[in-house]
Amino acid sequence: MSSKIRIEDARRFRVGDGFRLSDVDPTATPGFSGSDKDLKKELVQHDEEIGVLQEKLHAEKQNSLLIIAQGMDTSGKGGLIKRLLDPMSPLGYRVQPFGRPTEEEAAHDFLWRVERALPKPGEVVCFDRSHYEDVLVQKVDALAPAEEIERRYGAIVEFEQQLAERNIMLIKVMLHISKDFQKENLRDRLQNPEKLWKFDPSDLNARAEWDEYMDAYQIALERTSTETAPWYCIPGDNKDYARAVVKHLVVDALRTIDPQYPTPDFDPKAELATLESMD
Amino acid sequence: MSSKIRIEDARRFRVGDGFRLSDVDPTATPGFSGSDKDLKKELVQHDEEIGVLQEKLHAEKQNSLLIIAQGMDTSGKGGLIKRLLDPMSPLGYRVQPFGRPTEEEAAHDFLWRVERALPKPGEVVCFDRSHYEDVLVQKVDALAPAEEIERRYGAIVEFEQQLAERNIMLIKVMLHISKDFQKENLRDRLQNPEKLWKFDPSDLNARAEWDEYMDAYQIALERTSTETAPWYCIPGDNKDYARAVVKHLVVDALRTIDPQYPTPDFDPKAELATLESMD
Repeated sequence: MSSKIRIEDARRFRVGDGFRLSDVDPTATPGFSGSDKDLKKELVQHDEEIGVLQEKLHAEKQNSLLIIAQGMDTSGKGGLIKRLLDPMSPLGYRVQPFGRPTEEEAAHDFLWRVERALPKPGEVVCFDRSHYEDVLVQKVDALAPAEEIERRYGAIVEFEQQLAERNIMLIKVMLHISKDFQKENLRDRLQNPEKLWKFDPSDLNARAEWDEYMDAYQIALERTSTETAPWYCIPGDNKDYARAVVKHLVVDALRTIDPQYPTPDFDPKAELATLESMD
Repeated sequence: MSSKIRIEDARRFRVGDGFRLSDVDPTATPGFSGSDKDLKKELVQHDEEIGVLQEKLHAEKQNSLLIIAQGMDTSGKGGLIKRLLDPMSPLGYRVQPFGRPTEEEAAHDFLWRVERALPKPGEVVCFDRSHYEDVLVQKVDALAPAEEIERRYGAIVEFEQQLAERNIMLIKVMLHISKDFQKENLRDRLQNPEKLWKFDPSDLNARAEWDEYMDAYQIALERTSTETAPWYCIPGDNKDYARAVVKHLVVDALRTIDPQYPTPDFDPKAELATLESMD
């Protein structure tokens, strides 16, 4: 018999005191036992509710939701974002990829481009990578001095604290895959003509630095997982499981925001009477 | 027996010489006869192909697609955009609404904010309203001097000509609804608590100026429908019919662009060998 993922299962991935990335088994699916088909059903179980809540969020224009997706290459950030947005209206969301900083971006503080990409009131925005690259790849490849990397953890905590004050709710997700799973995925990209475009030779450089990346994630997650902006470190080898877990976090966040259709600043009955009196 | 909409049916809505908006029957569904259920099937018939073509467009990063949706209030621009994007990946598209210009936007030429919102190579962008508002509402409500409105038609033609040279393919759609249909829709918004947020009292002002708007559309469409940037004026009272027609235009445009997965600038076999030699 299959068991459903509950919100408690999703919450247990929250990064708190004593968190060790090495304790998280990328192949595990805690709270779930069942077939792939059961999991596909799990994946859409909240879709209708998410659709309604997002419409209200968009209508009310008071709060917004920012979802940050991080993870090693092929961890499924893109697929996750697609599934999260599936039940929502594209008129109310936006996907923001973060690549290598442009010349203009590099001339500013690392949070400059993030500030510009934040959701407006009512919006749902998904970051495909984020300012965390500035304490991950920049640390591993020593693209910034150690003191600057050190400064950034504090700057991020402060920045994200301000987001809460600006009514931007934050969900930060690390999709944690195993090194073996990445190998399978990279092999698949290299052997499949329809996936080859997703491969970049630099992916292998990052793979060669796997342990350094895990160390950088460990530090980033423990230094920046706070009460208002917690990290969730989710086993990623079963992609549908990870997606289902994050959908729980999304519906949970939207319920907490509890958006409402706005109170009209006009009298609907009077407007209706005017309408009926017109051609 | 039901008849399917063909690409020829979609093309016949192209605005050409001698076009008269008043000749277009908003309630007609040329080329289609069948049930609502048949129409729902029509609506998704190209979805798989659209998904593949958009992924290739996104992968290739050479060309892009800009879809402009115009029409009176409640003509279904938002619903159209949602359906068009349904089969596509949100990592490759963006929706850009155009509201009343901000102070900063109003301080610039009317095309300034449009230039900034154009698709990047590989992107699909949908404009929910557009620079055409600057020759529609701005003309009807005399928000700009007549000479300035006059100048804008030429400026638009020139601007859109440049888009073609920048590999941005353009689909311009006017959803043409009847005045009766708008009344039904506005009534529905005013009576339905879940739709009330979409109503704005200014909608009734625009409705009172219906004939002036139709005149402004007539002039805008005849002055700016060109070989490279044609307008399509589509009967809008049957929303699913209009959506199915525009989906034909979209798949037709993507087939014309004929995007290809990019040729890798590395040797996949060598990369695979490197991968296999790693942990």
